[in-house]
Amino acid sequence: MGKNYESRETMMGASTKQGYDIASKSREIVRSLIEAKIKNLSSKEQSIVERIVHSTADPEYAEITKISSNFIDESIKSIKAKKGILTDINMVKAGINKYEGEINCYISHDDAIKLAKDEQITRAAAAIRIAHQNDFDGIIVIGNAPTALFEAINLVEKEGMKVRSIIGVPVGFVGATESKEALTNANIPNIITKGPKGGTPVAVAITNSLIRMCDD
Amino acid sequence: MGKNYESRETMMGASTKQGYDIASKSREIVRSLIEAKIKNLSSKEQSIVERIVHSTADPEYAEITKISSNFIDESIKSIKAKKGILTDINMVKAGINKYEGEINCYISHDDAIKLAKDEQITRAAAAIRIAHQNDFDGIIVIGNAPTALFEAINLVEKEGMKVRSIIGVPVGFVGATESKEALTNANIPNIITKGPKGGTPVAVAITNSLIRMCDD
Repeated sequence: MGKNYESRETMMGASTKQGYDIASKSREIVRSLIEAKIKNLSSKEQSIVERIVHSTADPEYAEITKISSNFIDESIKSIKAKKGILTDINMVKAGINKYEGEINCYISHDDAIKLAKDEQITRAAAAIRIAHQNDFDGIIVIGNAPTALFEAINLVEKEGMKVRSIIGVPVGFVGATESKEALTNANIPNIITKGPKGGTPVAVAITNSLIRMCDD
Repeated sequence: MGKNYESRETMMGASTKQGYDIASKSREIVRSLIEAKIKNLSSKEQSIVERIVHSTADPEYAEITKISSNFIDESIKSIKAKKGILTDINMVKAGINKYEGEINCYISHDDAIKLAKDEQITRAAAAIRIAHQNDFDGIIVIGNAPTALFEAINLVEKEGMKVRSIIGVPVGFVGATESKEALTNANIPNIITKGPKGGTPVAVAITNSLIRMCDD
């Protein structure tokens, strides 16, 4: 393939020269739009926020993305140790690229479907519990379901679930805001997007950005 | 599972009572936010826009979503005939639920990777061409790559690619706006989001909304 256009975080997922040219131009535009808003962040934090805005075309993320001080270091440690990545829905899993560790999502597993029914909880929440029962250890990525994020926080606090960091960017008008507030109040390295906004592309942008940082 | 919470379009993907309750409450909030902006749309069009705003928590989509007059009918015909669905990236494919026809995405196929290299085009564009070479017939769903949307329009116009409708909601600051303008000027039933915004959740929300309409 000649030059490997995936080798640097700056490429934002491009794998051909054409894709790279588009990503470069996009990065310039993104920077010009949000530069002033992210100037107090570290370069790694800036890189994450830029990738979110690149992926969503929504500069508001430069204002609503909040990163805890230990989030990047703990996440990088987890990725370098090839610990697990657990996603709330399969769409998030499908977007994560070139990770050498295991990526799991249990939302469609029979165990999660049965647990949801038995316990009268959402399948997304049940899927996090199933991961804990399967000795999960690593980073949790919630791009969709507030109930999954609440469950993850609960399992860390009450049952010592082994979670290195949480990417908590569920989306929606019911519970998302509250679940992200709960995460920032928990003692877990985290990144969130304040308010109702968030979603799969945001979750994927953050995760892939962290994975690319570990290539360097 | 008792009541099937996926059986109505209004459920927005919920599959448990808890998920259903959240979706219902979300739908009420979404409606109150965008009601005035979508009051001139048909009930099916409203249903699509509501699902987009539910999925993104971004009411701006009520203003920027544009649906051609023949889009819903042609899409429903295609779905009822179980014709193909072609997505630009795997994340979009991963989000489409309960479709009885085939869903394809060629972006990771060797043929697309080779074609992209040989022709110096993006992999996303090459993947659309591979689908045409494989006699695709159905709905194209572009949630990410403007280059894929340009290629689809080109193949329909120049090579008679069999496309029933295009969900054209690529995202980004480079080419997305222009590719969506080109789609609205082409003679293809379409839905777009004006400007740079769009993305996987928007593409998935539209597609699943159409599929659920066919359950009735």
